Order: sequence, then C-alpha cells, then structure tokens
Amino acid sequence: MQKNITIVGAGLVGSMLACYLSKRGHKVSVYERRPDMRLAGYVGGRSINLALSHRGWKALKGIGLEEIVSTIAIPMTGRMIHDLDGTTHHVPYGKEGQAIYSVSRGELNRIMVEEADKFKDVDFHFDQRCDSINFNTNEVVFEGVDMQQRTVKADIVFGADGAYSEVRYEMQRTPNFNLSQQHEQYGYKELQIPATADGKHAIEKHALHIWPRGSFMMIALPNLDGSFTVTLFAAFKGENSFEHLNTADEVKAYFNTHFADAVRLMPDLVNDFFDNPTSSLVTVKCYPWKYKSTCLIGDAAHAIVPFYGQGMNAGFEDVKELNEILDATNESWDEALDMFQQQRKPNGDAIADLALHNFVEMRDLSGREDFQLRTKIEKKIAQHYPDKFNTHYSMVTFSDLSYNEAKQRGEKQGKLLDSIMAIEGIETKWDSPEVMQVAADWIAANV
Amino acid sequence: MQKNITIVGAGLVGSMLACYLSKRGHKVSVYERRPDMRLAGYVGGRSINLALSHRGWKALKGIGLEEIVSTIAIPMTGRMIHDLDGTTHHVPYGKEGQAIYSVSRGELNRIMVEEADKFKDVDFHFDQRCDSINFNTNEVVFEGVDMQQRTVKADIVFGADGAYSEVRYEMQRTPNFNLSQQHEQYGYKELQIPATADGKHAIEKHALHIWPRGSFMMIALPNLDGSFTVTLFAAFKGENSFEHLNTADEVKAYFNTHFADAVRLMPDLVNDFFDNPTSSLVTVKCYPWKYKSTCLIGDAAHAIVPFYGQGMNAGFEDVKELNEILDATNESWDEALDMFQQQRKPNGDAIADLALHNFVEMRDLSGREDFQLRTKIEKKIAQHYPDKFNTHYSMVTFSDLSYNEAKQRGEKQGKLLDSIMAIEGIETKWDSPEVMQVAADWIAANV
Repeated sequence: MQKNITIVGAGLVGSMLACYLSKRGHKVSVYERRPDMRLAGYVGGRSINLALSHRGWKALKGIGLEEIVSTIAIPMTGRMIHDLDGTTHHVPYGKEGQAIYSVSRGELNRIMVEEADKFKDVDFHFDQRCDSINFNTNEVVFEGVDMQQRTVKADIVFGADGAYSEVRYEMQRTPNFNLSQQHEQYGYKELQIPATADGKHAIEKHALHIWPRGSFMMIALPNLDGSFTVTLFAAFKGENSFEHLNTADEVKAYFNTHFADAVRLMPDLVNDFFDNPTSSLVTVKCYPWKYKSTCLIGDAAHAIVPFYGQGMNAGFEDVKELNEILDATNESWDEALDMFQQQRKPNGDAIADLALHNFVEMRDLSGREDFQLRTKIEKKIAQHYPDKFNTHYSMVTFSDLSYNEAKQRGEKQGKLLDSIMAIEGIETKWDSPEVMQVAADWIAANV
Repeated sequence: MQKNITIVGAGLVGSMLACYLSKRGHKVSVYERRPDMRLAGYVGGRSINLALSHRGWKALKGIGLEEIVSTIAIPMTGRMIHDLDGTTHHVPYGKEGQAIYSVSRGELNRIMVEEADKFKDVDFHFDQRCDSINFNTNEVVFEGVDMQQRTVKADIVFGADGAYSEVRYEMQRTPNFNLSQQHEQYGYKELQIPATADGKHAIEKHALHIWPRGSFMMIALPNLDGSFTVTLFAAFKGENSFEHLNTADEVKAYFNTHFADAVRLMPDLVNDFFDNPTSSLVTVKCYPWKYKSTCLIGDAAHAIVPFYGQGMNAGFEDVKELNEILDATNESWDEALDMFQQQRKPNGDAIADLALHNFVEMRDLSGREDFQLRTKIEKKIAQHYPDKFNTHYSMVTFSDLSYNEAKQRGEKQGKLLDSIMAIEGIETKWDSPEVMQVAADWIAANV
C-alpha cells in the first residue's frame, strides 16, 4: 500500500532513501535544512572527500545510479605513504583491479538529489529546519528561513539528517533512549593541493596519500579537476597540535618540518589554513533507532569517524538492507523497521569501533616498517587461501560480510598475525614455508 | 561583586544552590517546571525514598539546614536482609552510631524551597519550563503553563534540572559536548507497607529492608507516619520481570512466591502495582559541564542509579565544593566553574560506576552467605586498623574522601578480600590470626 513518507535530510542517505522508497511506489517528501545544493553549490571547507567502496556501489546499483556516479569517481588502488624524507611507498588496498573511489561529497550530493528528483512522487523542500516531531501523529514541524512553520503529516518518518540529527535530539527525550555522543581530542582542517599548470594531478592520481606522523597525519584525495583535497588531522592540544598553529610562521614551520614534500605543492597553505575551520570528529551510538513510526538511518543512527572511509558506505548499506527487509516482510512497516534496527545496530557499532581503530593505523602504524610487513604477510595468506582467509581491510571494504562479522573475524586473524610477527627473525623469513605453515595450521583449526 | 544568577530547577540541588549563592551575597532566581510543591504537594508514585548520609548532611550544615532536615529523617543503622523463608539478618552499615537517613524526597524538597525562600534575594518561579538558552547572552527563555514566554537574562546560569535536564539538551548542541545516556534493562515500581493500626512501623523502623532475589529485589525505607515506601526493582523483560506481571493474579503469585513475608503487610499491593508507573533507571555522564557562563550541576551533570543512595548526596556535595572553590578563587567565576567541573567530573563518574555495581550487591550478593562473610571480614580489618583501612561502603557513605579515591581504594581492597576469601576453609577460620596476618601484610605493603 502506498505510504506518505517524510524524510528529514536531503544528504546522501536521505536522497538515496527517497529513490528506493519511490521505486517501491511510495510518496516521498524530503526536507532539508540547507539551501538547494543544485542552485547554491556545495559549501566546502569542512568536508574531506569520500571514499566510495563496494557497499556503496552496490546500494547505488539498486536504483540504477552506479553509472552516473562513476563519472565523478576516481579509483584509488592503494595508499601512498609519504615518509618524512619524502620517500613514498605504494601499498595496494586489495587485489589487482580492486580500488576505493574518491568522490567529492558536494558533487555526489548534487547528483543524488538531481537523480532522486527524477523519481516518481519524490519532492524536495530546502531551507526547512526540523523543529519538532509529534511521534504519536507522525507530524513534523519544519521552520523555513522565512521563520514560517509548517506541519507535515506522514505515515512514516525517517531521520536521515546526519551526525547532529534533529530527529535524534527529539527521539532522545522518548523513554529509554540510549545515546553516546563522543568527540575525539582531534580536529581536522581542509587544505588543498591545486592542479599543475597544465591541469594535471601534482602527485599520483590513483592513490589515497597519507603522511603518517604518529600522533597526527595529513591525507590527500584526488579531485576530477586535477586538485587534491588535503586534510590535516591533529590533536586540539598538546605536542604538534592545532593549539600551536596560530601564526603564518608557525603554520609554515610546522608543515616544512613534517610535510616538506607536500608544502611545495600547496601555494595557498597559509590562507587555506586560516580561512577554513578546524572541525571536530564525533562518534554517535544510540538505540533504539525506531520510535513508533519514526526511524533513524545513516549518520543520524550511527555517526562514525572517517578513518575507515565507511561512513557513507554504511549509510548506503542501511538503505539497501532496509529495502531488502521491506521485501522480506511484505512491507509490514512496523516489523520491518524493527528488524532493520536489530539487524543494523551491531553493524553500526562495529564499523564505529573499526573506524576509531583505523585512525591509529593511518596516522601511526601505516608509517611503521613492522606494520607494513604485517600487512604484506596478511595479504600473502589471503592469496594462498582465497576462500578461507581475507584481509581485514578487504572484508570491510570489498565484501558484503556484515561489519560485525568482519570485525570479529579481523580480531581473530589479528591474533594469528600477532603470533607470526613474534617469530624470531620474521623480517627475513616472512616469505618462508615455516611462516605459511603457522598460517595453514591456524586456518585448519579456525576456519 | 553581586551577580544575577539564574538557576534552572528548584529540586534539591537547585534550592540548596540558591541558599549557598544567596549567602555569598548574590541575587538568585530559581525557575522550576513543576508547580510549587509548597502548594500542590509532591506528586509521589515514582520516587523511592532518599538515603541522606554524611556528604549530604555536611552540605546542609553549611547553610544551617541540618537541624530542620533532621526533623524529617529516620536513621537506618543497617540493612535488614529478608531471606526467601522470611528469616531476617541485620547487617550494620558502619560503626556504632553511624547511620544513613531515610527522607521523603517530596518532604525534603518542600523544606528546602521553604528555607531557600527565606534567604535574601532568592526568588522562585514555578510552572516555568526552560525552552531555550542563548549561551552568548546568558538569556534563558522560559515558557509558563499559560504558554507565555519570558526571557531571563543573568550573569551566570546553572542547570540544576535533573537527569533529563533541558539545560543539558541545549548544551548538547554546543561544540565538542560529550554525552552518554544509558538506561538499565531494569525498571522500578513504588509500592507501600502502611503503618499498623496503632500507627507503628510494621517491620524494623531503623533499617533499610532488602529482599535480594538474585536478578531482582524489593526494598523498603521507613516513613515518619509509620509506613514504608517499598520499591520493586526488576528487569523489563525475561524471567521474573515486569513483562509477566499483567494481571492481579500474576502479581499476587509473584509476590507470594518471592516476598511472602512482606505480602501480608501490603494490603493495597495489587492496586498500587497497577496505579503506579514502572519507571526506568538512567545513568548520564557528560562533559564539559560548563559552556561560557552556564554550568550543569547535580543530576543534570551526572545522573546515577539509586543503588548506592548517593544521587542527592553527590549533588549536595557538588554545591558545597563549588562554594569552597568560589572561596578559593576569590569568586573568579570563569576559573571557578572550570575548576569545579575538573574537580567534580572524576567523582561523578566514579559514583555512577559504584552505583551500578551496588545494584548487583543489593539484589544478589547481599543475600549470599559468602558475601556476608566477606563483609564481616572487611569490617573486622577496618576495626583492627581504624587509621589505615576503612570499608568500601564507609568510604563512600561516611567519609569525605572523594568518590574517585573511594572507588580506587575500594578496588584495591577488593583484591585483598578476594585473596582472603580464597583461603581454604575461610568459613571456619575467618576469625583466625592467619587471616588477620594476610591483612596485616597487605596493609604494610599497600597503605
């Protein structure tokens, strides 16, 4: 039966959800706090580029948007690690042919809204801030930039309004709502490496560049126009932190010391640094996601830090799985939303934890030789036992395995790798039959 | 310099804070969402009695309210454990002469408001719901029951508005605010044991009664009129939970099975059970407590479960320590509020954790013989070494030691007690020199 559905938030998840629900025959109204990004352009300066991977592509495919999105996506086949002395190492993410894809959040959002708008019975309303919700009547009050309030009644309401979700703030006051909202002691700032004079990428285009420096790091993701979106992640306070970057000289000295090979490619460094805000990183876990006929989805339900490149992918997978559950329950909505939250909650928690852990991997471990060796061994085992052993990164990034399962398998495999790394002289004999025998025994016992 | 101070919340902490700030010479306006409890009477049915102890009394003393509050307080010198077969055991809380005090939340609140109202430059405004706060201007918008809004400007704003604090909900949207709001899988329901026909207490007056039943429990605290406020704590779902208590017969059977000795004293059991709500238990941790000139205090900053009887005591201690910090900083408010949050946050966290742990102790351990023996040994060590060893319960309840220090010392002492309980035949030789030697060695090494 056709339902009237209100979606709060026309971001990536909200607009994808609109497509899926329209395809199911529902009438969908999407309300967004910000201006129409098709007219206003996306306001940058505080968004790292996104890394679209397997789960995201699969969800896009379900509504036929794979092709159009691929026109704005740049494959990144591995990490390019930049050592302090300027040496670089390329570490592939997966097997030959596997990649994650750099996309601009603004560009992608524009395309998603444009495409969703073409779907039947989908309408968008911009400049509409969610003010309050009556969970008993499914009425949402929105306030326009003109301060006019309008009340919108629906059969089902989705909160797809991001990490600082208004729908969640409202739901937080319902009985027995559990919430954890934790900010890191780290902030980030967007910078830029512009295209070369002839419009090319100044450094390797098909890589996610990392300058791992232990307690802080810089990363760079390629854009279509030849530029890179660069992001510095550092603590708010303490050694090598934002606290000590208050003058042009301090900023220049810091970058010259820690990122010398990049500085020469960043002519606007100082201006960018002081023009762009220092943003914060939040992890939100909550439960339940559903209250009566209102349901949180995407970042609103499980905001995570960006270090596994899975925030958008997790949100897109939410939508795809909700769609599958609606099929499986024959659109029994109450049951479906309940199944949805039960099925997705452990996965939201798992990817939140993995993303936090991956920050340590990116800023610190990825620059260490022992970790690079460990990764090499992990990949070798995966090559030998393609049906029984997959690298942790691949399970998260290139597979359909639930995040929770990927996390648990990763932890188990981690113990194997710990024991292998503890073998005396592993640096020289990592490629030896002895080492592969340890892996073979473990796989025989554990898989 | 005299400040205009807005306090949101005229509960126990809000009214005590008003007294302390008035005494310091400030002008204090207190706004409360509920009607004036002096006129309307306190609406019960969802409040377990409070257990006032050392920290609370000390804070009351600082504003001269010790005496008047003592007129409504009933000393409870120990736990009275009710076994399934009706056998009772009295377990003293502390030394001879030490007690915690049963007070009715409603009565105490009424007295606190009455007394605060007598202080100079304190005014109360009831039926005023906090609607929003402008943290830059210290303007709080309140909405009356008449739906009229009024904006109140102050120099300093305190959020003393409890576990579901509106001030905290507002503060939650400020940058880098961390929050955890977790409900237990347990609920509670208030019941009653009325006074006997001749107005006496039907069971021992000077005890906190506990019917520990493993995964659930009932407790009873004495009232002045001879009645007891009884509270059932049980899981929402599962075995022996509220889920299965839907008819009069189910309720009667449950109480007859588990609380037979109490049932005969509870003539209104079934009516009370269905008239009173099943309330939930929440732990809230957050930080920072201060944003610009607004500061959370009491439950608004650190709501805890009631199982250590420390919620109000912790809130009162907040006020007393804030007062000391204002002295120490010569009323440099910004510095004082910052010191306040830094000093109190670890203690709020500690008592939150201790309170959760004490639920297990009350509902399960307190009914077990090995735990009762452990408690006896702990007390014996404390008697032998009065300057070097205090029981965990006493450190929390009868001392000024910070909660955090009490928690840490308690954990250390717990290891000693674990090792003593592991001695073979401890049941028969707990009183032997051998056991005291273990304690003596530990104290020599650790204290």
